Amino acid sequence: MILDGKTTSQKIMSELKAELDKNNQPLIDLDIILVGDDPSSRLYVDLKQKKAKDIGVGGKIHELPSTSTTQDVVDLIQKLNNDSSVTGLMVQLPLPSPIDRDLVLEAIDPKKDADGLTSYNLGLLFHKDPSAIASATSFGIIKLIEEYKINLDGKNAVIIGRSVDVGLPLFALFNNRNATVTICHSHTQNLIEICQKADVLVSIVGQKNFVTADFVKDGAIVIDVGTSLDIETGKIVGDIDFNSVAPKCSYITPSPSGVGPMTIASLLLNTVEIYKRNK
Amino acid sequence: MILDGKTTSQKIMSELKAELDKNNQPLIDLDIILVGDDPSSRLYVDLKQKKAKDIGVGGKIHELPSTSTTQDVVDLIQKLNNDSSVTGLMVQLPLPSPIDRDLVLEAIDPKKDADGLTSYNLGLLFHKDPSAIASATSFGIIKLIEEYKINLDGKNAVIIGRSVDVGLPLFALFNNRNATVTICHSHTQNLIEICQKADVLVSIVGQKNFVTADFVKDGAIVIDVGTSLDIETGKIVGDIDFNSVAPKCSYITPSPSGVGPMTIASLLLNTVEIYKRNK
Repeated sequence: MILDGKTTSQKIMSELKAELDKNNQPLIDLDIILVGDDPSSRLYVDLKQKKAKDIGVGGKIHELPSTSTTQDVVDLIQKLNNDSSVTGLMVQLPLPSPIDRDLVLEAIDPKKDADGLTSYNLGLLFHKDPSAIASATSFGIIKLIEEYKINLDGKNAVIIGRSVDVGLPLFALFNNRNATVTICHSHTQNLIEICQKADVLVSIVGQKNFVTADFVKDGAIVIDVGTSLDIETGKIVGDIDFNSVAPKCSYITPSPSGVGPMTIASLLLNTVEIYKRNK
Repeated sequence: MILDGKTTSQKIMSELKAELDKNNQPLIDLDIILVGDDPSSRLYVDLKQKKAKDIGVGGKIHELPSTSTTQDVVDLIQKLNNDSSVTGLMVQLPLPSPIDRDLVLEAIDPKKDADGLTSYNLGLLFHKDPSAIASATSFGIIKLIEEYKINLDGKNAVIIGRSVDVGLPLFALFNNRNATVTICHSHTQNLIEICQKADVLVSIVGQKNFVTADFVKDGAIVIDVGTSLDIETGKIVGDIDFNSVAPKCSYITPSPSGVGPMTIASLLLNTVEIYKRNK
């Protein structure tokens, strides 16, 4: 069965819009910082702003040149942290390489951290603190799973990838829901064998056809997070060899239209939640 | 082979003392808050103060009655946070039940968090931030493993127990050293099968003989963290059925004299590190 991120995200957005309409469309601003001129980053940022606008959330895109220093980005973040008209803010990743991503992300006020990427919010998530803001992608995966009434309790979950923006917060969210979680990565010795035990398998690799049918247990739930550019077709593709894997799964996300749209919906869920807490 | 926490901790303490002696014994204070009158908590607190004194670290024990409220404890913590004569502070766990442990721990200034239990420090640990202060017990386990030159890279590590004070920070420390880590807990369905795959097995359960020989792969490294009171003997015992498990292991910690003394050594390592950063 397909875990339809497109339809689920549209449902979430409609509910958010209805909630904001009911409250006479309060002023909510999600500001986005875009550094450099990576074309897909530009595309994502525009899409985020458009989706925000659709439900009545405003906000500026702050463009900085690719020659910006870490301090330039940190200075802008501090300005937005202190600007009471800005509800939440996020920095589009990846950043141009000389910029220190960790210093940039840590500069965000955890209370305005719409994308949920500060270490403070990750720590709160592991502490099951209700004030934690989860990373948008990992929260989107949880919302998608919950939409299909999948119970994670007692399930073996295997996450391939340990990024601070997806793998680690997803580990926390799965663990908090009583799954038994394993995180695999480039140093893992017996990856296929570990994946074959997974009731829930999540791939965050960024390599076309990385996960093939032999990775997957019959009846598993398979979530495709990683993306890469397919040079043959010029399209963005996921990690899962969908045609061979799908027949073995109880549930599978397509890519696109799986985790991607859920990430944007969760970013807006986070933003509205931040608004409600801080108003 | 025995992972000798007693000897290793003594070595760490001697090195710390030599370092402090060389710097003319600077004023370093580790303050400990003890709430209520649990006899083993009292024992541990006295032991921590004694060991601190041995290397030249001072500090008060602040005793609060078991009838204290969460706010009483938080108020004291805030006073110590703001007291520049206090280098680091910790709250002895467990707390009497009506007190909200999370609120208490979160009140500690992360920069003075000698026991490494704030969510902020846990988040920094997952972010591999060099300023993170790791929980004393999990850091003690790492120091013990490193003393024996055990390389975790690529090893399958299984941690039974997901507490914020040991299981989760140990997950971060193992993951940061490129082990493939699984966290098991009370909802795990196939615990023995998962443990049998472990190159490194850590038990944080608090139940005598919880880990028996059938849990353990030949040649595994087994770490005993959980403790409980053995009613028959009146002694504090670990989780591992040592006599049956030890012959299968390449390395094993005894209990006592394994992880316990390492926890105190790490608490003092953290305290001296905090002193050096904040002076």
